Amino acid sequence: MRTCMQIEIESSFSFTAEASTDMLLQFEAAAIPEQQILSCETRMDPAEHIARVAAQDNIGERIWLRCQGEFNVHYSARIGLQRMQAGLDDLGRLDPHNLPAETVQYLFDSRYCAATRFQSFVEAEFGGKTGGRRVLAMRDWITRKIRYQPGTSDSNTTALDSFVERRGICRDYAHLMVSFARASEIPARYVSVYAPEVDPADFHAVAEVFLQDPDIPGGGAWYIVDATRMAGPDDAVKIGVGRDAADVSFMTVFGPTQFGNQQVSVRRRG
Amino acid sequence: MRTCMQIEIESSFSFTAEASTDMLLQFEAAAIPEQQILSCETRMDPAEHIARVAAQDNIGERIWLRCQGEFNVHYSARIGLQRMQAGLDDLGRLDPHNLPAETVQYLFDSRYCAATRFQSFVEAEFGGKTGGRRVLAMRDWITRKIRYQPGTSDSNTTALDSFVERRGICRDYAHLMVSFARASEIPARYVSVYAPEVDPADFHAVAEVFLQDPDIPGGGAWYIVDATRMAGPDDAVKIGVGRDAADVSFMTVFGPTQFGNQQVSVRRRG
Amino acid sequence: MRTCMQIEIESSFSFTAEASTDMLLQFEAAAIPEQQILSCETRMDPAEHIARVAAQDNIGERIWLRCQGEFNVHYSARIGLQRMQAGLDDLGRLDPHNLPAETVQYLFDSRYCAATRFQSFVEAEFGGKTGGRRVLAMRDWITRKIRYQPGTSDSNTTALDSFVERRGICRDYAHLMVSFARASEIPARYVSVYAPEVDPADFHAVAEVFLQDPDIPGGGAWYIVDATRMAGPDDAVKIGVGRDAADVSFMTVFGPTQFGNQQVSVRRRG
Amino acid sequence: MRTCMQIEIESSFSFTAEASTDMLLQFEAAAIPEQQILSCETRMDPAEHIARVAAQDNIGERIWLRCQGEFNVHYSARIGLQRMQAGLDDLGRLDPHNLPAETVQYLFDSRYCAATRFQSFVEAEFGGKTGGRRVLAMRDWITRKIRYQPGTSDSNTTALDSFVERRGICRDYAHLMVSFARASEIPARYVSVYAPEVDPADFHAVAEVFLQDPDIPGGGAWYIVDATRMAGPDDAVKIGVGRDAADVSFMTVFGPTQFGNQQVSVRRRG
Repeated sequence: MRTCMQIEIESSFSFTAEASTDMLLQFEAAAIPEQQILSCETRMDPAEHIARVAAQDNIGERIWLRCQGEFNVHYSARIGLQRMQAGLDDLGRLDPHNLPAETVQYLFDSRYCAATRFQSFVEAEFGGKTGGRRVLAMRDWITRKIRYQPGTSDSNTTALDSFVERRGICRDYAHLMVSFARASEIPARYVSVYAPEVDPADFHAVAEVFLQDPDIPGGGAWYIVDATRMAGPDDAVKIGVGRDAADVSFMTVFGPTQFGNQQVSVRRRG
Repeated sequence: MRTCMQIEIESSFSFTAEASTDMLLQFEAAAIPEQQILSCETRMDPAEHIARVAAQDNIGERIWLRCQGEFNVHYSARIGLQRMQAGLDDLGRLDPHNLPAETVQYLFDSRYCAATRFQSFVEAEFGGKTGGRRVLAMRDWITRKIRYQPGTSDSNTTALDSFVERRGICRDYAHLMVSFARASEIPARYVSVYAPEVDPADFHAVAEVFLQDPDIPGGGAWYIVDATRMAGPDDAVKIGVGRDAADVSFMTVFGPTQFGNQQVSVRRRG
Repeated sequence: MRTCMQIEIESSFSFTAEASTDMLLQFEAAAIPEQQILSCETRMDPAEHIARVAAQDNIGERIWLRCQGEFNVHYSARIGLQRMQAGLDDLGRLDPHNLPAETVQYLFDSRYCAATRFQSFVEAEFGGKTGGRRVLAMRDWITRKIRYQPGTSDSNTTALDSFVERRGICRDYAHLMVSFARASEIPARYVSVYAPEVDPADFHAVAEVFLQDPDIPGGGAWYIVDATRMAGPDDAVKIGVGRDAADVSFMTVFGPTQFGNQQVSVRRRG
Repeated sequence: MRTCMQIEIESSFSFTAEASTDMLLQFEAAAIPEQQILSCETRMDPAEHIARVAAQDNIGERIWLRCQGEFNVHYSARIGLQRMQAGLDDLGRLDPHNLPAETVQYLFDSRYCAATRFQSFVEAEFGGKTGGRRVLAMRDWITRKIRYQPGTSDSNTTALDSFVERRGICRDYAHLMVSFARASEIPARYVSVYAPEVDPADFHAVAEVFLQDPDIPGGGAWYIVDATRMAGPDDAVKIGVGRDAADVSFMTVFGPTQFGNQQVSVRRRG
């Protein structure tokens, strides 16, 4: 079953680079089959250099920028979402030896997700379940045990830290979900999204896990899971994917930069 | 200038899986332009399932395996190496905004290489140099400051740990090199190799950095750097590449397994 | 109620120092009111320098040593134990503001016990209980969740690591117990002990928590808690105490030393 | 040689505890031989419970407090300092086996100072020097390599982090100094102080190392070392000492508390 949902996005941010500085931006809804870009506009101030490059797994684009002084970015778009709505609890996992090449990297440990360290825990806590049921049990555990508390985590915070300290924001919830899934030999990646229920409105992040695709014998597909419960497959507009937050930032700067304002608005339409 | 070198490799290892277990192996010389596979033979015991999948950056292959009981792997090959021999000290860096899409992931922090944390250090220590000269200065620093000492690091040891403790093995040298390069905005990846001067003979690991290609205006290429000084572009046979050691292991097991013997022999020929 | 138990201890170890080297040893049963040293013998090879100094909290002694070459230590003792046997579940906690000066340091974070990081967890998991009942609930949680698995932890392993990886040895169990207690504002220290049920026989470690003393209005006392369940107040012979394992080692060396054999035998007598 | 210096201190802070909450305060100049309390006044709002307990090493006092609602603390004092002014570079170290009992804990690893991990580094970098000369070389290294940068460290930052990231505040400088000294087998502790040159005026922290006392054959004494160079033996008024910052905080709260204003003024007098 596929639903169709229209999402309207407005986001803008600005910054000031003292000297001529390189930046990498990734803030636009990805043009992928499940997301139809009904309309979109990206306005950026003039720069010394602007180049678009394909982003990870060919989902979305990154923009290389070289600029100096104040720089303003404004993005608005209307997206038609038609994402598969399988109930996760009916989905089996693919045995590792049947995983396609492009998913293998998402089994491995990454900067914030040292998944192998969680193997004993996930086996003890979720060992009786497999596939989608296990993913849902892990998601529910995270929702129940972690407190959403802005200001308690930063760019050094790993899934290990969040697991011990039991608090964090969407980034940390996604890191735990990704770590638990990988520790269960289920490929998992980190996804930055726009979603209308995120409160307060902001860039958001969720996890995606690779499980059986009921429509393709032996095949698999990526499914969105959000332990914060603020977004879901029917309303999350993907910007980009990566191993974890180290790969997916709406702005990465390579030099001294003052960050200015940032505004995000995401609404369901009609 | 390109040299031609022939390398003979023999490697074998064995393990015993109690129950039917999934494994991922990566031990064969990669078939890439700079490495001609003159002859090769891979012998493995019968398994329930064997499937080859492309490895990271399409360099080499990984072998998915499902097996039970004792399992033996034997690999022998003769490789003709023809790798570009640019002197690194003449090579400039590419400005980040000119980096091609596929190198961008190698700027980011990974499991063992939290490069951003080294930015102040590399700027203070190597700030006066750029490009290949900087890479060489960083390599020399590592060679000088780190002691090669087997048994002092393990699968949890990060570049940060090695930086503080000043000791480790090839894996740790490569993690430091990768971290310093990324902290300098130079893409860097981890490469598992066979190399004849490694003593005692074993699987080896080096770093690769992405710098200007003098033959392609505006273009770049990957260059091998080994701070242990046991391997170099003229004698390192690449097996696979990744963000760091988390991505490139000759054997990853997904279940309880007893590891048996392992033997590696690598020789220059003729 | 006090029981009386006699424990016979034999322990020996040897090592070889290449050059003249300083060492700190702590392996003898502490002479404290609850432990009567019925007989004891300490035999050590001649050394350049031997000096006894009081150990932490005046519990036991440390031996400063300066020696070279092979060095053998043999210790045998018979200890009469008469330790208070309060049931922990009847004991209240002392409010922090009533804690005596000498217990305050045991509220703070130490090398292996970053207790403050566990505050959210202990509040969520054990928030409904206080005092001795809480300590027992925390002990039971550790017993249930952690697997005793030698070889999975080392001298870098913290309570945080053990909490995530869910495995370890007596040292790690004690670090978790100490961390959970401190996160609950209950002073807790690390105690090295000899105990007869430890299997295989070895130096052992437990936690001690500071709770109400039912015999002294407003007063408190230290109580042994062992989440490995291998030792208890009636059969643990204390060697020394500290903040955590960083403070209490049977041997600390200040120079290159080869460790030789080690043998420990502890038996109930009579 | 002893100098005599008068220092005037004013410090005040306030906080609000939602519910009845325990606190531990330590903000008064310690009454120790080298510091004569010429005059002092401590004003605190009424509380449910106030009790003074001796602080670590009997240097200064901690104040246990139980209070609710807004609470104001004001402290003013005039201190006469007469501290021994030995030039560190003439002082030898005491061999570990000659260290008195009370200094032994200051050789061990603590929460923020995992000194053993720095042993290779300090041996390689400072191996040619001993005693006071080594301490000074280590101090100068820290001054040179670390950038004073408020806002870059927090309560999780260890000496290891500061060593890698090369930045921090007085707390981090002191942690590095303590770690390097302990890794050299020189007892070292963390000292919170008032000092007139601290800019901006605030609570400050320095390290103390235990070296030979030239006046006592075979004896030792504690010497202040401040790698930030903002305080020294002639103008630092000690508040308290500990293993590291985990032990010495001007305010530790055991419950939800809003911190209010804080003001510190320290002046040389006359």
